[in-house]
Amino acid sequence: MLSKGGCPKTMLSIKDALEAVEGRWKLLILFALSESPKRFKQIAREVPGITDKTLSKELKSLEANKLIRREVYDTFPPAVEYSITPHGLSLEKVLDELHFWGLTHRKEVIGE
Amino acid sequence: MLSKGGCPKTMLSIKDALEAVEGRWKLLILFALSESPKRFKQIAREVPGITDKTLSKELKSLEANKLIRREVYDTFPPAVEYSITPHGLSLEKVLDELHFWGLTHRKEVIGE
Repeated sequence: MLSKGGCPKTMLSIKDALEAVEGRWKLLILFALSESPKRFKQIAREVPGITDKTLSKELKSLEANKLIRREVYDTFPPAVEYSITPHGLSLEKVLDELHFWGLTHRKEVIGE
Repeated sequence: MLSKGGCPKTMLSIKDALEAVEGRWKLLILFALSESPKRFKQIAREVPGITDKTLSKELKSLEANKLIRREVYDTFPPAVEYSITPHGLSLEKVLDELHFWGLTHRKEVIGE
Protein backbone atom coordinates (compact mmCIF):
# COMPACT_ATOMS: atom_id res chain seq x y z
CA MET A 1 0.00 0.00 0.00
CA LEU A 2 2.26 2.77 1.24
CA SER A 3 5.32 1.08 -0.17
CA LYS A 4 3.73 0.99 -3.60
CA GLY A 5 2.30 4.51 -3.46
CA GLY A 6 -1.47 4.09 -2.98
CA CYS A 7 -3.79 4.68 -5.90
CA PRO A 8 -7.21 6.41 -5.89
CA LYS A 9 -8.99 3.05 -6.26
CA THR A 10 -7.32 1.70 -3.14
CA MET A 11 -8.34 4.88 -1.41
CA LEU A 12 -12.00 4.22 -2.26
CA SER A 13 -12.12 0.85 -0.52
CA ILE A 14 -10.24 2.21 2.49
CA LYS A 15 -12.77 5.03 2.68
CA ASP A 16 -15.64 2.52 2.51
CA ALA A 17 -14.14 0.59 5.40
CA LEU A 18 -13.48 3.69 7.51
CA GLU A 19 -17.02 4.95 6.98
CA ALA A 20 -18.48 1.64 8.12
CA VAL A 21 -16.80 1.84 11.52
CA GLU A 22 -16.10 5.48 12.23
CA GLY A 23 -17.94 7.72 14.64
CA ARG A 24 -18.49 7.40 18.32
CA TRP A 25 -21.00 4.57 18.49
CA LYS A 26 -20.83 1.94 15.75
CA LEU A 27 -18.05 -0.14 17.26
CA LEU A 28 -19.51 0.05 20.75
CA ILE A 29 -22.80 -1.29 19.41
CA LEU A 30 -21.02 -4.07 17.50
CA PHE A 31 -19.07 -4.97 20.65
CA ALA A 32 -22.33 -5.23 22.60
CA LEU A 33 -23.88 -7.46 19.94
CA SER A 34 -20.77 -9.62 19.56
CA GLU A 35 -21.60 -11.31 22.88
CA SER A 36 -25.15 -12.27 21.91
CA PRO A 37 -28.21 -10.97 20.06
CA LYS A 38 -29.90 -8.21 22.01
CA ARG A 39 -33.01 -6.08 22.14
CA PHE A 40 -33.03 -2.32 21.72
CA LYS A 41 -33.26 -1.57 25.45
CA GLN A 42 -30.46 -3.98 26.28
CA ILE A 43 -28.13 -2.33 23.77
CA ALA A 44 -29.07 1.11 25.08
CA ARG A 45 -28.07 -0.01 28.59
CA GLU A 46 -24.72 -1.40 27.43
CA VAL A 47 -23.69 1.63 25.38
CA PRO A 48 -23.47 4.32 28.04
CA GLY A 49 -24.43 7.81 26.97
CA ILE A 50 -26.26 6.96 23.78
CA THR A 51 -29.74 8.41 23.31
CA ASP A 52 -32.61 6.32 21.93
CA LYS A 53 -32.74 8.53 18.86
CA THR A 54 -29.04 8.09 18.07
CA LEU A 55 -29.14 4.36 18.79
CA SER A 56 -32.07 3.96 16.44
CA LYS A 57 -30.22 5.88 13.70
CA GLU A 58 -26.99 3.93 14.20
CA LEU A 59 -28.79 0.58 14.17
CA LYS A 60 -30.39 1.50 10.84
CA SER A 61 -27.00 2.44 9.39
CA LEU A 62 -25.36 -0.76 10.65
CA GLU A 63 -28.25 -2.77 9.20
CA ALA A 64 -27.96 -1.00 5.83
CA ASN A 65 -24.27 -1.88 5.84
CA LYS A 66 -25.21 -5.52 6.60
CA LEU A 67 -23.11 -5.55 9.74
CA ILE A 68 -26.11 -6.38 11.90
CA ARG A 69 -29.47 -8.01 11.32
CA ARG A 70 -32.83 -6.96 12.75
CA GLU A 71 -35.24 -9.76 13.43
CA VAL A 72 -38.88 -9.44 14.39
CA TYR A 73 -40.31 -12.38 16.33
CA ASP A 74 -43.94 -13.25 15.91
CA THR A 75 -44.83 -13.10 19.56
CA PHE A 76 -47.28 -10.94 21.43
CA PRO A 77 -46.15 -8.23 21.85
CA PRO A 78 -43.74 -8.67 18.89
CA ALA A 79 -40.10 -8.89 19.99
CA VAL A 80 -37.35 -7.26 17.96
CA GLU A 81 -33.78 -8.50 18.29
CA TYR A 82 -30.54 -7.32 16.76
CA SER A 83 -27.61 -9.62 16.03
CA ILE A 84 -24.22 -9.30 14.40
CA THR A 85 -23.92 -10.84 10.91
CA PRO A 86 -21.02 -12.93 9.53
CA HIS A 87 -20.06 -9.83 7.55
CA GLY A 88 -20.00 -7.83 10.79
CA LEU A 89 -17.82 -10.48 12.38
CA SER A 90 -15.44 -10.25 9.41
CA LEU A 91 -14.38 -6.86 10.79
CA GLU A 92 -12.39 -8.77 13.40
CA LYS A 93 -9.04 -8.63 11.59
CA VAL A 94 -9.43 -4.94 10.72
CA LEU A 95 -10.21 -4.13 14.34
CA ASP A 96 -7.26 -6.20 15.53
CA GLU A 97 -4.88 -4.28 13.28
CA LEU A 98 -6.38 -0.93 14.29
CA HIS A 99 -6.09 -1.95 17.92
CA PHE A 100 -2.44 -3.01 17.73
CA TRP A 101 -1.41 -0.02 15.66
CA GLY A 102 -3.32 2.28 18.03
CA LEU A 103 -1.34 0.88 20.97
CA THR A 104 2.00 1.49 19.22
CA HIS A 105 0.80 4.91 18.16
CA ARG A 106 -0.03 5.94 21.70
CA LYS A 107 3.41 4.83 22.85
CA GLU A 108 5.09 6.61 19.94
CA VAL A 109 3.26 9.90 20.37
CA ILE A 110 2.76 10.17 24.11
CA GLY A 111 5.39 7.96 25.67
CA GLU A 112 8.68 9.61 24.88
CA MET B 1 -11.86 -8.56 19.50
CA LEU B 2 -15.46 -9.07 18.39
CA SER B 3 -15.39 -12.70 19.36
CA LYS B 4 -14.33 -11.80 22.87
CA GLY B 5 -16.67 -8.81 23.24
CA GLY B 6 -14.50 -5.68 23.00
CA CYS B 7 -13.67 -3.74 26.12
CA PRO B 8 -13.49 0.05 26.55
CA LYS B 9 -9.69 -0.03 26.64
CA THR B 10 -9.54 -1.75 23.27
CA MET B 11 -11.94 0.88 22.02
CA LEU B 12 -9.51 3.62 23.04
CA SER B 13 -6.64 2.34 20.91
CA ILE B 14 -8.95 1.71 17.97
CA LYS B 15 -10.20 5.28 18.30
CA ASP B 16 -6.59 6.55 18.36
CA ALA B 17 -5.86 4.69 15.16
CA LEU B 18 -9.02 5.84 13.42
CA GLU B 19 -8.35 9.45 14.33
CA ALA B 20 -4.84 9.28 12.91
CA VAL B 21 -6.07 8.30 9.45
CA GLU B 22 -9.62 9.55 9.14
CA GLY B 23 -10.86 12.50 7.15
CA ARG B 24 -10.56 13.27 3.49
CA TRP B 25 -6.88 14.15 3.16
CA LYS B 26 -4.50 12.39 5.54
CA LEU B 27 -4.14 9.16 3.60
CA LEU B 28 -3.82 10.95 0.28
CA ILE B 29 -0.95 13.01 1.69
CA LEU B 30 0.72 9.89 3.12
CA PHE B 31 0.33 8.15 -0.23
CA ALA B 32 2.00 11.10 -1.98
CA LEU B 33 4.88 11.06 0.50
CA SER B 34 5.28 7.27 0.39
CA GLU B 35 6.92 7.58 -3.03
CA SER B 36 9.54 10.09 -1.94
CA PRO B 37 10.05 13.16 0.27
CA LYS B 38 8.32 16.19 -1.22
CA ARG B 39 7.99 19.93 -0.85
CA PHE B 40 4.75 21.68 0.00
CA LYS B 41 3.94 22.71 -3.55
CA GLN B 42 4.62 19.22 -4.88
CA ILE B 43 2.24 17.67 -2.36
CA ALA B 44 -0.39 20.30 -3.18
CA ARG B 45 -0.17 19.32 -6.86
CA GLU B 46 -0.51 15.61 -6.11
CA VAL B 47 -3.49 15.90 -3.80
CA PRO B 48 -6.14 17.31 -6.12
CA GLY B 49 -8.63 19.70 -4.60
CA ILE B 50 -6.77 20.49 -1.38
CA THR B 51 -6.31 24.16 -0.49
CA ASP B 52 -2.99 25.48 0.82
CA LYS B 53 -4.63 26.28 4.13
CA THR B 54 -5.99 22.77 4.60
CA LEU B 55 -2.75 21.15 3.44
CA SER B 56 -0.81 23.21 5.94
CA LYS B 57 -3.19 22.18 8.74
CA GLU B 58 -3.10 18.52 7.77
CA LEU B 59 0.70 18.47 7.54
CA LYS B 60 0.90 19.89 11.06
CA SER B 61 -1.47 17.24 12.36
CA LEU B 62 0.45 14.43 10.62
CA GLU B 63 3.69 15.79 12.02
CA ALA B 64 2.25 16.00 15.55
CA ASN B 65 1.22 12.35 15.17
CA LYS B 66 4.78 11.53 14.03
CA LEU B 67 3.56 10.06 10.79
CA ILE B 68 5.60 12.53 8.77
CA ARG B 69 8.70 14.60 9.39
CA ARG B 70 9.32 18.21 8.33
CA GLU B 71 12.89 19.03 7.50
CA VAL B 72 14.32 22.50 6.86
CA TYR B 73 17.45 22.55 4.69
CA ASP B 74 20.00 25.23 5.29
CA THR B 75 20.04 26.56 1.74
CA PHE B 76 19.24 29.95 0.35
CA PRO B 77 16.29 30.32 0.18
CA PRO B 78 15.69 27.64 2.86
CA ALA B 79 14.05 24.51 1.47
CA VAL B 80 11.43 22.64 3.47
CA GLU B 81 10.74 19.00 2.74
CA TYR B 82 8.24 16.53 4.15
CA SER B 83 8.86 12.80 4.38
CA ILE B 84 7.05 9.80 5.78
CA THR B 85 8.47 8.37 9.04
CA PRO B 86 8.97 4.70 9.94
CA HIS B 87 5.95 5.11 12.22
CA GLY B 88 3.95 6.41 9.23
CA LEU B 89 5.08 3.42 7.19
CA SER B 90 3.95 1.10 9.97
CA LEU B 91 0.37 1.97 8.95
CA GLU B 92 0.88 -0.36 5.99
CA LYS B 93 -0.75 -3.41 7.55
CA VAL B 94 -3.70 -1.43 8.90
CA LEU B 95 -4.30 0.08 5.46
CA ASP B 96 -4.01 -3.33 3.83
CA GLU B 97 -6.68 -4.76 6.11
CA LEU B 98 -8.93 -1.74 5.63
CA HIS B 99 -8.45 -2.04 1.88
CA PHE B 100 -9.29 -5.74 1.70
CA TRP B 101 -12.25 -5.46 4.02
CA GLY B 102 -13.48 -2.41 2.09
CA LEU B 103 -13.47 -4.44 -1.13
CA THR B 104 -15.49 -7.27 0.46
CA HIS B 105 -17.80 -4.71 2.01
CA ARG B 106 -18.55 -3.08 -1.33
CA LYS B 107 -19.36 -6.47 -2.83
CA GLU B 108 -21.52 -7.43 0.15
CA VAL B 109 -23.51 -4.20 0.27
CA ILE B 110 -23.77 -3.18 -3.38
CA GLY B 111 -23.28 -6.38 -5.35
CA GLU B 112 -26.30 -8.46 -4.53
